[in-house]
Formats: sequence, structure tokens, C-alpha cells
Amino acid sequence: MSQDKTTNQSWGGRFSEPVDAFVARFTASVDFDKRLYKHDIQGSIAHASMLCKVGVLTDSERDAIIDGLREIQAEIEAGQFDWRVDLEDVHMNIEARLTARIGITGKKLHTGRSRNDQVATDIRLWLREEIDIILGEIERLQSGLLDQAERHAAVIMPGFTHLQTAQPVTFGHHLLAWFEMLQRDRERLIDCRKRVNRMPLGSAALAGTTYPIERSITCELLGFEAISGNSLDGVSDRDFAIEFCAAAALAMMHLSRFSEELVLWTSAQFNFIELPDRFCTGSSIMPQKKNPDVPELVRGKSGRVYGHLMGLLTLMKSQPLAYNKDNQEDKEPLFDAVDTLRDSLRAFADMIPAIKPRVEVMREAARRGFSTATDLADYLVRKGIPFRDCHEIVGHAVKYGVDSGKDLAEMSLEELRGFSEQIEADVFEVLTLEGSVNARNHIGGTAPAQVLTAVQRNRALLPGNNAD
Amino acid sequence: MSQDKTTNQSWGGRFSEPVDAFVARFTASVDFDKRLYKHDIQGSIAHASMLCKVGVLTDSERDAIIDGLREIQAEIEAGQFDWRVDLEDVHMNIEARLTARIGITGKKLHTGRSRNDQVATDIRLWLREEIDIILGEIERLQSGLLDQAERHAAVIMPGFTHLQTAQPVTFGHHLLAWFEMLQRDRERLIDCRKRVNRMPLGSAALAGTTYPIERSITCELLGFEAISGNSLDGVSDRDFAIEFCAAAALAMMHLSRFSEELVLWTSAQFNFIELPDRFCTGSSIMPQKKNPDVPELVRGKSGRVYGHLMGLLTLMKSQPLAYNKDNQEDKEPLFDAVDTLRDSLRAFADMIPAIKPRVEVMREAARRGFSTATDLADYLVRKGIPFRDCHEIVGHAVKYGVDSGKDLAEMSLEELRGFSEQIEADVFEVLTLEGSVNARNHIGGTAPAQVLTAVQRNRALLPGNNAD
Amino acid sequence: MSQDKTTNQSWGGRFSEPVDAFVARFTASVDFDKRLYKHDIQGSIAHASMLCKVGVLTDSERDAIIDGLREIQAEIEAGQFDWRVDLEDVHMNIEARLTARIGITGKKLHTGRSRNDQVATDIRLWLREEIDIILGEIERLQSGLLDQAERHAAVIMPGFTHLQTAQPVTFGHHLLAWFEMLQRDRERLIDCRKRVNRMPLGSAALAGTTYPIERSITCELLGFEAISGNSLDGVSDRDFAIEFCAAAALAMMHLSRFSEELVLWTSAQFNFIELPDRFCTGSSIMPQKKNPDVPELVRGKSGRVYGHLMGLLTLMKSQPLAYNKDNQEDKEPLFDAVDTLRDSLRAFADMIPAIKPRVEVMREAARRGFSTATDLADYLVRKGIPFRDCHEIVGHAVKYGVDSGKDLAEMSLEELRGFSEQIEADVFEVLTLEGSVNARNHIGGTAPAQVLTAVQRNRALLPGNNAD
Amino acid sequence: MSQDKTTNQSWGGRFSEPVDAFVARFTASVDFDKRLYKHDIQGSIAHASMLCKVGVLTDSERDAIIDGLREIQAEIEAGQFDWRVDLEDVHMNIEARLTARIGITGKKLHTGRSRNDQVATDIRLWLREEIDIILGEIERLQSGLLDQAERHAAVIMPGFTHLQTAQPVTFGHHLLAWFEMLQRDRERLIDCRKRVNRMPLGSAALAGTTYPIERSITCELLGFEAISGNSLDGVSDRDFAIEFCAAAALAMMHLSRFSEELVLWTSAQFNFIELPDRFCTGSSIMPQKKNPDVPELVRGKSGRVYGHLMGLLTLMKSQPLAYNKDNQEDKEPLFDAVDTLRDSLRAFADMIPAIKPRVEVMREAARRGFSTATDLADYLVRKGIPFRDCHEIVGHAVKYGVDSGKDLAEMSLEELRGFSEQIEADVFEVLTLEGSVNARNHIGGTAPAQVLTAVQRNRALLPGNNAD
Repeated sequence: MSQDKTTNQSWGGRFSEPVDAFVARFTASVDFDKRLYKHDIQGSIAHASMLCKVGVLTDSERDAIIDGLREIQAEIEAGQFDWRVDLEDVHMNIEARLTARIGITGKKLHTGRSRNDQVATDIRLWLREEIDIILGEIERLQSGLLDQAERHAAVIMPGFTHLQTAQPVTFGHHLLAWFEMLQRDRERLIDCRKRVNRMPLGSAALAGTTYPIERSITCELLGFEAISGNSLDGVSDRDFAIEFCAAAALAMMHLSRFSEELVLWTSAQFNFIELPDRFCTGSSIMPQKKNPDVPELVRGKSGRVYGHLMGLLTLMKSQPLAYNKDNQEDKEPLFDAVDTLRDSLRAFADMIPAIKPRVEVMREAARRGFSTATDLADYLVRKGIPFRDCHEIVGHAVKYGVDSGKDLAEMSLEELRGFSEQIEADVFEVLTLEGSVNARNHIGGTAPAQVLTAVQRNRALLPGNNAD
Repeated sequence: MSQDKTTNQSWGGRFSEPVDAFVARFTASVDFDKRLYKHDIQGSIAHASMLCKVGVLTDSERDAIIDGLREIQAEIEAGQFDWRVDLEDVHMNIEARLTARIGITGKKLHTGRSRNDQVATDIRLWLREEIDIILGEIERLQSGLLDQAERHAAVIMPGFTHLQTAQPVTFGHHLLAWFEMLQRDRERLIDCRKRVNRMPLGSAALAGTTYPIERSITCELLGFEAISGNSLDGVSDRDFAIEFCAAAALAMMHLSRFSEELVLWTSAQFNFIELPDRFCTGSSIMPQKKNPDVPELVRGKSGRVYGHLMGLLTLMKSQPLAYNKDNQEDKEPLFDAVDTLRDSLRAFADMIPAIKPRVEVMREAARRGFSTATDLADYLVRKGIPFRDCHEIVGHAVKYGVDSGKDLAEMSLEELRGFSEQIEADVFEVLTLEGSVNARNHIGGTAPAQVLTAVQRNRALLPGNNAD
Repeated sequence: MSQDKTTNQSWGGRFSEPVDAFVARFTASVDFDKRLYKHDIQGSIAHASMLCKVGVLTDSERDAIIDGLREIQAEIEAGQFDWRVDLEDVHMNIEARLTARIGITGKKLHTGRSRNDQVATDIRLWLREEIDIILGEIERLQSGLLDQAERHAAVIMPGFTHLQTAQPVTFGHHLLAWFEMLQRDRERLIDCRKRVNRMPLGSAALAGTTYPIERSITCELLGFEAISGNSLDGVSDRDFAIEFCAAAALAMMHLSRFSEELVLWTSAQFNFIELPDRFCTGSSIMPQKKNPDVPELVRGKSGRVYGHLMGLLTLMKSQPLAYNKDNQEDKEPLFDAVDTLRDSLRAFADMIPAIKPRVEVMREAARRGFSTATDLADYLVRKGIPFRDCHEIVGHAVKYGVDSGKDLAEMSLEELRGFSEQIEADVFEVLTLEGSVNARNHIGGTAPAQVLTAVQRNRALLPGNNAD
Repeated sequence: MSQDKTTNQSWGGRFSEPVDAFVARFTASVDFDKRLYKHDIQGSIAHASMLCKVGVLTDSERDAIIDGLREIQAEIEAGQFDWRVDLEDVHMNIEARLTARIGITGKKLHTGRSRNDQVATDIRLWLREEIDIILGEIERLQSGLLDQAERHAAVIMPGFTHLQTAQPVTFGHHLLAWFEMLQRDRERLIDCRKRVNRMPLGSAALAGTTYPIERSITCELLGFEAISGNSLDGVSDRDFAIEFCAAAALAMMHLSRFSEELVLWTSAQFNFIELPDRFCTGSSIMPQKKNPDVPELVRGKSGRVYGHLMGLLTLMKSQPLAYNKDNQEDKEPLFDAVDTLRDSLRAFADMIPAIKPRVEVMREAARRGFSTATDLADYLVRKGIPFRDCHEIVGHAVKYGVDSGKDLAEMSLEELRGFSEQIEADVFEVLTLEGSVNARNHIGGTAPAQVLTAVQRNRALLPGNNAD
């Protein structure tokens, strides 16, 4: 048999010239897919075990393969493995090393599978593990939010719509809005994980294999929930990566929203919170600067995850069945989306417990801006005036307040009665901040009592407190 | 009270000049959100019923409101409703008409709610209904695929990877790969629907309301599964629209892949299938043309749904709480994503049952291109040679075949034995197409027997056959 | 000849069944491409004129066609044209009407062209016109910015980095930053217009035509700058639409940045500017609200243009030559991108001249936050201390200021000298706001004198003042 | 002065605790921005030269700085530089090393500039150079296309629309369509380069500087075409990176289209071209496979560049002035877009000269599919029948041909006259492939003579042949 060193040994039989040197580099994936080494070995061990059970490998062949793979894993983890670009990818690097170590038996490992189903299996094993890490970080962040919300359930700040003062809310209530967003992110990742956790191994190149494989054995060994139902789909499906990126893009969108608020709140103009120095950096030129780098950077990082989502959707557009080389491009965006989301969550989970509200600044801001105007309208409704008319009455009072520089609570009863004779002395209760927030005492409302109830309800949703 | 006609009557109290005419048009949404009229009325009826139950409206007020709304719905559906841009949106148009019809009681409907929670409720009701229609179209398309797959379970065609002939597969198996993709799309939409089906009503403007509302009443009347847990989040959450668009983008990606294959298969070069004239159009200049317009157009339409997904993610990036006017931009992309997905599915569900494979052309294509080379390698493995070496032996045989113009099955036993003495007369069985496909007889494999099993398994997943 | 009414008359000859009714609607484009009617007629008139010059049409045939087309244009503009979906698109609608009006000669118009080159020509004519309108709106907005910048060249506000107070700048200088962004947008649109303004007409279906056409004649009649050099490319090139959307996305990105600042500046916390009531709207529930709807909406609209860009890029990905039906999907995103950009610019061009800075609030904000810390460091550099050391000295002073609640200018000379003995009494000059801004007096710097110079320099770039 | 080792030495003065270890890693950019080292040093040398000319540095200080920077560059290029994450970025790493080497003078380099204008300058210098390399690769690819087009100017293949056989074209004509697309890509990059080639240096942190800098000196030393006109814009403008990514996305879109065709053409079904083995790879399981990996991979890589464009647009959405930390996220997408485009072009420029058309296969394909039907219609027009009627006559002939299995040229004169009595014996000339292509002899048409003319015209557009 020819031992032509210049062509690829795993598939070069039919080729009459070696691959162009630039093309070899251009098409190789080992520089990034070596990250999958652990899951590649995990999958190979399961595959070898199954091949043995169905009689394709002997017990000693299986043991030689498994021992060899474990030693290779140790080599890699010790930084002693020589990754070779001419071997294209993580799979051929490991297999070539295995054959170098254990001889001809190593060449039997690839029986009944193909790199097409192998890589699809590896990446699912890897992503499943990463999703669990990410879920842990979300939960840690959620837990920090609940603690802060409980602590500040009665701290009053202005609630905004259109970034205009709208109505008083509590700081705890505001933080629980963030909790809700993260909770949906968790749900989506859990839903996504179901579809990640299906096993393509056994699809072989595209059509299945002629060996008497038992897919249920590898499925169980690898902890998959289900076996992919069609081999053509099994090797070419990248939905799980796109769905993950979509869920990650939504989560990063949420983090960009939290970030925007943290940036606003640490500005001199808002000055609502204090961010410890250790989460900030300075300026090389302006000595006074203390910049909220973490939220800014996370806000910016939303862009790269959006981009990866779009990149993967583009990648798969119009691809005919089954595997095409295009699919090699699935890994780098997915890896970076995972890293970005995980690190961003980690930074937030570390930072959130350390932020401190400036209670007096928040309260003063809530006192301004006619934030209790709706309460006055509601007061008038209770006096029997239709809501739409109350709205207009209060609108006129506000206009007067803008012109005269007085907030509603600063007007005299007489002034107020100039807008409606239904207004009486008890009006001043509804115009207080506490009156306003306490009155919104229903599920989802901003009343401190509701905030505390919601904290309890939400704690039960976190894994430590609940089987989930 | 001032009755200044030039300023908006629902909020103009504090304003000293009317809205600029261009700005009024630019910021109005009624041209597109009137599409939500039915769900707006549905939500208002439930709201009024609840307000009555908690004592904010009397029975007769409630009845007047509900009757008025039903008459307005009839007016709209009869095309007799006068939509006014100066009333901004669907909500104010309907409310203004209600007050015109039933007088001052109409002004009471808006008690305890805001347009912020109202529109969020409307759009969820609407999307929930559309998802169910879309699920129905997916199932119809899946059902058509199962019928075709069953009919053509044993029709052999070349399976491709890299669009190069890889291994023989069956046409039924190929169609089942499409089924799998659609099945995941269904799962994702069902998961998304859970998050759509939560009720923001009661969040009011941003902080909840001071009226004694009972959100569980409206929740039950409107058939929501759950009540949103935080009012700030409730009015500003657009995750459900983005998640829908992500699921729709994935589904359109799948349709773009099916489309690509249909376009290839109807080309003169492939000529694998026949597409009835009624799904094609011609050319204004080339009299012979019969173009596969439907798959081409659907392939192209993937772009618009990808675009809407990206548009909505951009929309929500960095938005501080709670509602901002930006959010008005959520509707048009969502509407168009829904319409595009639904119509594309409909076109495919109509078309797929009508495509006919050209059995002989497919078979002949599968016979060419050394499609059974892997079978030969597997044959040699069974003779005791390690897979990697078998691969190289067959590679040399293929190279000989390319040069001599012979496919593997066309070589003599003597020629084949020139590559390995292990090859014997029984080799020709494994080189047949039937031998090749039948040998891949495991879950997910292409063997006709597996295809029929998969058809049965998959039928049980469709709603008609299963409670689902 | 068959006159089968049920198949399409422009291409139905070879078809044995009519198009499915849903498919006919699904594939028709007339609902949106009728917007091109004027440019379609313009192109047809030029084509007919050319056909006559080269002898394909007689003078009287040409005249009949041109007169007929002009009458049809009048019909359309009078709202009397009956657009028919069964005629698919704007081209066939107009041609069918022409033949109905002028008889058999109408059927000769399509000689030597195809809908493929016809639509590509129409859309370029249309886009060229829209770009000119958009350029006009940009210039109007730029002009408004220059007027405001001139008026407020010496108004001092805090300049921000990381939304933290950085250094004092002038309001005029800030507005000129916006001018620069718009100037690049103009440049990009002008560059894009060169590539829009090339004529595909004459490419026919894909390969050119057998008629003795003279493309230079139609090119001149239609005012194109150049003739497309390859027919296959001519009918399938949609670069111009994508390039426009990319330029539009950048412009909308800029408007989103301006919007963000306007929203911040109208918040109670910043309170930097006043926005007239006519550019704001109110709330249906909160009587005090005055929301900056225009900038919010424009900020949100950036999403849809980003989305259209991504949609068109997706559309063209992997399309083989030449025209494919997918390309019909180019129009709606392009139309909407044009409308969105034009209207957003218009709203800004109307609004910007009306905003008023709150000079005292801005000044007070600039006085806070150690905004002249860099000036102090620079002062120390002039005393011979290396910049990096000065930076650290001032950093310590700032830390002292944060703890003691004093800004730099509020510290005594003695206190300041505690940080460096090089500090002398003249330090207080550099700590003033005027001293700080006036000192940055170089090209691009914030000094009022530079602002006025830049206003003059920029005015010359606007068309009214310069041939451009 | 405090020498607290635990806080950052370039800005730590005002900080009371060191940066969190994870935050330090999370916010550092040196891992990727070190790629800019050469341009950072280039910019610093120019800055030091200018500072000396205006009297801020002495001659000997300038010389010490420049010599030190050159030695650092040598260290980096020899792989002996110790990049430190705790120094955050490429700028501080180099500056710290400079001070370590030359002492206190090194601390003076940063006078009158900030990292904000420094990094903006570096990245423009870097991108300008990369654009020139990319332009060179485009031209090399274009040149290869012209050679191939000239060689195969008269090779006939089927032209497609809707991937259906449309009209015969020449292979040379088809390749020239690709040339045109690349020509527009070149134009766009040249236009983009103008806006890249503007100098932000001198904008300092955001407002300019108090030192007497002369920006025209650095501008000339660095070869910039212009000086940015506004400091706030100068430090926060990332348009140039987005515009580059948009141009790159368009170019990758074109490459994805070329790739799609190469993949189709190397399929067994088309079999139109031969791709040398050195541009292909094989399969680890299927011994016969020879896969067109390069075009597949390039097609897939379009996704990542689309993604980077979207990521950067998202990044900049809604950012207030001036520099925000978000902007650090501009580099990795830009770097990867540059690398991807350059390598993809390189692979194509290497590969295209090596592809060989299978002339006979192409010709046979063109002979089938009624590709000269339009020629027959045009023939009838010349007999005086209106085009629309000719179209229908030929449509009926095609329908007859489909049913009877005969192409038009295979029908007898009698058969053809059954569809129109105007058909005479000379019809068979127009039904030949040569007759068809030669007849399309106008600018942009497919006639071999036009192809050769276009090759000459296009050669003049390439730099080697023209000053350009």
C-alpha cells in the first residue's frame, strides 16, 4: 500500500496530488476545535464500549482504545500534546495519536462512525455542559437580585417611562423586573437544552452504517435524552447551536438593559447608586474618572452575540442535505457566544450584590416631576369623575405646577381645588410617595409588601430551594 | 374645563401647543396596529368584567361597555369604522368610538389600566392565536411528508455530502430529514407559546394600579396560563416577540434548505422530481421556462424573517425600564414574520404532496459516483482489515475507476482483487444499491424498513393521532 | 392560437394548468411594486424611443406607445387604474393596459428587453431620486445644526466619556460632532449613488438580446452615468440596494445616538434642553407626562433598517447566476429603509432648530464632577512634572475631593499644595470652565473660537453655499 | 507619592481598592489589541516628533523616545516582549516598557493625547494597510478571471435563470459577471479607504488638548489625507469599521455566489468543471469523496462577516458621546472580518486560474432545455409578429417538445410550421448555439466578440495596466 507522506493519510487514497499548503491551513479546524478534546474522547470511549458490546471490537481492543484515549487526555491536559494542522481537526489528531500509541487497533475506533456524526456529538456534549454552567451563573445573579430586592423592598425611587418621571416605584421592585427577565432566559436555556441533548452518533457519514451498532447503548453511556431520528438530519442539524445563540442573544439583550441603567445610575446626573471601585477603571488622561467599565463592556458585548446568531443563521441558509463543509464554521461563533454570555453573567453576579442605592437621592428624585399625578387622578375617580376627565383636570394642575415651579404636594388645598372642587384635605395622603407605592398592592405591583411576597415566590424558583 | 380641539383629548391637559402635523403622523400607529382590534376588544371586555366584579363598575356600566364594544367590532368587520390617525392607535380609536356611542361610561373603561399593559396584552392574545394557526400548517406539511415518505420508502437516490455523491439513500429517508426539522420547529413554537401566554394586564402604566383589581379574573377570562410577576417588566417585555421571530427564523431557514433542494432537483441537471405546473410560473421573454417560483420565493423570504429578528433584537438593546416609545416598533416586524412564515408553510403544505420523484433518474444517479465505496470498505473490515486501511484500499480502487471510467460494480473481480486479495465474489452483493441501503438498518438509518418504522413513529407525534 | 383565459397570457403557452390561486397571490408583487409605476413608464418611454431609433419600431408605433404610457400614468395618478394581482407585477399591469388602449402595437414594447432588466432599471431610477431627496433632508438637518452651533458656540456643558463627567465642552462643539457624522453619511450616499446610477437595461433576460439595440441611447435618455458591463450581472446585481441599506443603517445608527442624547437631556435628571410640546406626546394614564416620542421612535427605527440590511444580505447569499425569483424580495425592505430614513431625517430636521439649551443647568453640571482635573494635570506638566506623575497627583486630589465634598476649584491653595508644591495661585485660572474650553484651541478642539471656525468651514460644504 | 502596587499605575490615584481580578481580565484588551503594536509605535513616533517640533519635548527627549520605541518593536517582533494583562492594553504595555527602558522621559510621551484618540489612530493606520492588501488580492483574482474569460470566450454553456436552462451563454461571459461584482467591491473599498484615512489624533480624551499641538504635522507624518474635524466625534467614531465590514460583507456575499456555482459545477449532476485535487479534501469514511472544501468553506464564511457587521452596528446603536467602554468591542469583529475576507480572496485567487471547464458537458447541457426558444421568438418578431404573440407560439412548440421528447432544433420544419406558417428553412440557423450567442453582440452581451472586448476594457481597470 502506498505510504505517500504528502497526501492526507485518512482519506488520501484517491488523490493524485497533496493539498495546497495554504488550503490545508485555510480548511483546518484544529486551532479552534481542539477545545472539544475532552468530549471527543468521551464520545470515543462510549463508541468503543458499544462496538465491543455488539461484537465489533474484542474486550482487549476496547480496553486498549480506552486506556490509550485516557492517556491522550492526560497528555493534552498536561500541555504535552502536539497538535498538528496537517491532521486537520481534533478528531484526526487524537485518532492519529491513538494509533501511534496502541498500533493497528487504533485504526478500528472509527468503525461505524464518521467525523460527521462524531463532531455533531462532541459539540452537543460540550454545549450541554456549558449550558449547565451558564444556568448556574444566572441563578447566582438571580439570587443576588433577590437579596438586594428584599433589602431594599421599601426604598423609593422614580419609576420611568420614556425616561421621564412616571410614578414612584421601589428599588426592590425595579430589581425584580430584572429577575423576571433572567427567569425567562433560564427557561429558554432549559428548553434549548432538551434539543441539545439528543444524540446524532450512529448517523455515520449521512445514511447510517452497515455495522450492527446499538445506538441506545451509546445514548445511555453519554447521558443523552434521546437518539436523533434521521441520519441525514443528524449530521447536518445545527439548530441547537442557533437556538442557543438566540437564547444567548436575548440574555445579552437583558444584560444590555441592566447595563444601560447602571451606567445611567452612576452618572453624576442620576447618582442613584454607588459602584465599588473594584468594578471600575480609570482614565489614562483624566485623573478624576471612575468609569463603570463592566456594564459598558457587557452592553457592548451584546453586539457580538447578536452577530454570532446572525452569522449562524446565514451559515445554514439554503444548505442542501447532508453535511457540507460550511458547517465547520459553526464552532467559533458558538464558542464565543458561550464565553461571552458566561463571563458577562459572572461579572454581573459578582457585581450586583455590591451595588448600593443612594436612598436619599432616589427619594428626592421621586418627589420631583409630578410623580403622583396619576394618584391624584385616581383619587378623583374615586370621587365619581370618569377617568378621562380626571386625567384632564390633573393635566391642567401639572401645567400650572410647571409654570409656577410647584410640585402637586407643594400646592395649597385652595390651589388644588381650583382644578376640581372634589379635592379635599385627604388628598395630601395620596400625594405622598409611600401612599402611592403602598396603594399598588396586587400581584406584580410595586407595593413593598408585594415586593417581599415576590421575593419569597421567586426564591422557590431557584434550584437550591426547589427540585426545579 | 378646556375643550381645546387642537390637542389630543386623551392626554393633552398639560400641553400648550398641539402636536406638529408631521409628528402626529410619524408617531401614530393606527395604520398597522388596527390589525389588533379583535384582541383589543376581547381584552377590554375582560377588563370591564373584572372591574365590575371588584366593584369599580356597576353591572349596567359593564353591560353598556361590552355591548358597545361588540357593536364596534361589528362596525370594524363590516368595514364601516372610521380609523383616525389623530387618535394615534387602535386603543384610542376604539375608546373614542365607545364614548361617542355610550357616553360618559365609555370613559370609565380605561380605569386601572394603561395603554402600556393594554397593548402588551393585545399582542400576546393575537400572537397566541397565530402560533396555533402556524402549528396547524406545520402539521399539515409534516403529514404530507409522511405520506410521501411512506409511498417512496424504497425509492433510491444518491445521498450527498458536499453536494458530491456520498452513499445511496432512499427518497423517503430524505423527506423524513425534513420532517425532523419541522418537528423541532413545532417544539420551539410550543415552548415559545408558554411565554407568550402570560398576562401583563394589570401592570398599568409601569407600577400597577391603585384600583382593587383582581388579575386572576382577567387571566382566566382571557385564557392566559399565568400572570406576569412584575409590572415594570410586564409593560416593557418584548422577549416573546423576539423569541417567536427566532423560532420563525429557524423555521424559515429549514424551508430555505428544502427550497434549495427543490430548486436543484427541478433543474435540468438533477431532474429528480416533477413539480406540477400550478406551482410554477413562466418567463415574459423565454417561452420555454417553467420556474420553481414557490421554493425560490420562500428561500428568499428567509431573509426578511432573519431581518425582523435582528431588527427586534436591536430595538430592545439597551432600553432602560420601563416602556419607551421605541417599543411601538415591535409590531410591524412581528406581523410580517408571522405572515411570512404562515404563508410559506401553507405554500409548502399545498405543494409537497404534489411532487413526484423521477425514480429512474434518481436510481441512475445513485448508480454513478462510486456511491457504494463505503460499503466496499465495510466489507473489507469484516474480512479483518482495520477501517483506516480499508479506506485507503478503496481509495486506490476509486482512483483507478476515475481514470478508467468504471464504477466499482462495473469492475471485474480480478480488477478488484488487484487492490486487495480479501475481495471475493460475494463483494458484488454489497455493491448493489439495495444491498447498501438495506444494510443501514438501525434507528435513524436509511433502510426502507427503518423509513417505514419512522413514518409510523412520527405519525403518532401529529395531533390528529395523539393528544400531544 | 389558444386564448385560455385561465393561464397567464404573458407566458402561459407551455403550461398545461393554471397557477394555483394561492400561489398566484403568494408570488405576485404588484401590491408593492406598483410604487415604481412612474419609473417603469419612464424606462419604457426611453426603451421605445431607442427601439425606434434603431429601426425596430416605426415613428408612429413609438408615438402610440409613448402617448399610451403617458395616459396610463395619468390614470394611475388620478387613482383610476385597476391594478390586477393576476397580472403579477407593475410591468405586466402597465403593458396589458397599454395593449388594451393602443392594440397590437403595445405588444411590441417588450421587444429586446425582459422583466429582469426592466425591474432592475426601474428600481435604480427610483432609488436615485430617493437618494437625492434624502441628501436634501440631511443637508437641511446639517444646516440646522450649524445654526444652533453658531448660536451656542460658547455655551458650556459637561463633556462625557463613559457617561461620567470628563471635561467641559461647548454645546456648539457637541452639535458639530453630530454634523460630522451626517457629513460622512452624505459622502457615503453620494458614493453609493454612483453605483446606483448605472443602467442594466439591455441585459434582457440574462444574455443580452438579438435585436440591434443601442444601449447608449437609453443610457442618455434616462440620465444614467454608465452602462452595466455584463448582462448576467446586470439582471442579478442587487449590490446597490444592499449598499444603500448599509449607508442607511449607518445614518440611522447616528440618529439613534442623537436620539439617545436627546432623551437623556430631556430627562428630569439631566434637564439640559427644552423640547417644544409639538414634538412630544403625553400619556393616556399619567397626566403629567411629556414624552420625547420623536427621538425615542427614531432610536427604535434604527432596528428596522438594520434588519432590512441583514435581510437583503441574506437574500443574496449563495444565489447562483443569473436572476432568481428570490430577488423579488429586494423591494419591500428597500422601500421601507428609504421611507424610514427619509422620515426620520425629516423629523430631526424639523425638530433640531427648535431645541433650547438650559444654559444654567448645563453650566452647573460642568462645574461639578472635577471636570477640570485634566487641566490641573496639564498645569503641572507645564511646571516640568512628567504627565503620568501629574495624573497621579491629581488623582489623589480628586480622592480628597470626593471624601470632603469639594470640587477642585473649591479647595484652598493650601489644600491643593498639599498634593504638589508646584501649585501656585495662578492655578485657579486653569480651573475655570472658560479657561478649560478656551485652552483647547486647535483644529477639532472645543474652544468657542474653534467652534465658530468650524461652523464657517462646514457651511461651505453644504450645497447652497458651494457647487459641491 | 503613593506607590500602591495593587492599583493601576496609569490611573489609580483616586481609587481606594484595586480592580477585581476577574474584572481586570474581563476588561483587558491586550490579548487581541497587541496586534496593533506596529501602528501604535508608528503613531507614537509621529506624536513625539510633533511634540518636539512644537516645543513640548526637547530633541534629546524625542530621540530617546523614538529609539526606545524602535527597540520595543524589535523586542515584540523577536517574540521577547512580555505582554501583561494587568497593563490592560497594547498602549499601556508599550508605554510601561518604554518608561522601564528610558526612564522618566517615557512618561512624557502621553502628553497631549489620550488612549481614546491613540487607539482610534492605531486602528485606522492598521486598517488602511489591510485594505491595500485586500485590494491586491481582489485584483489578483480579477486578473485570473480575465485570463480564464479570454481563454474560454467562445465556450458555450447554458445560462440559467431560476436554475432552469434559459439561454446559451459563454463561459467567458459568465466569468466576467464575477469580475464586475469584484470591481464594485474594489470601488467600495477605495471609497471606504478615504474615510478610514482621516486622523483622529489630537482629539485627546474628547475635547482636544491644552498643549500647543500641530495636528497637520502628525497628519503628514502618518500619511493621513485629512484631520478629523471634531474631537468628540474623533474619539467615538467607528463608522469606518462598520463601513469596512459592510463592504466586506458584500464581497463575501459575492464569493458565496461564486462558491455556490463552483459547488454546483463540481457535482456529478452538473459536472461542468474540474477542480484540481490540491483544492479539495476527502472523507474519513467514504473513500471515493473529493470535496470542494474551499468554495464550501468560503460560502460558509460569509456568515461570520455578516455577523460582524451586525455586531458592530449593534455596538454603536444608541451610544451617547463621546468614548464609551463599549467601543473596545470594535476590534475583534473587525480583525476577523479583515482576516476572513483576505484569506477567502487569496484562496480564490489561487484556485480560479486552475479550474478547467468540461467543454463538451457544458455544450451538451446548453443543447438541451429549449435554450434557443427566445431566439425562435425573436425570429418570428422579425417576420412581423408582435413579441407577445411570438412568445405564445413558441410556448406551444415547447409544450409539444416536452411531450414528444424533442428539442426545438430536433423538430422538422413541418412540425415547426405547425405552430406558425412564418417559420421557414432559415430557422435552423437561429436555433444553433453559436447563432444564439453570436447574435447578442452589444455592450454587455454574451457574444464571444463582446467577451473579448470586455476583457480588454477590464484589463485597463487593473492597477498593473493603469495608474488607477
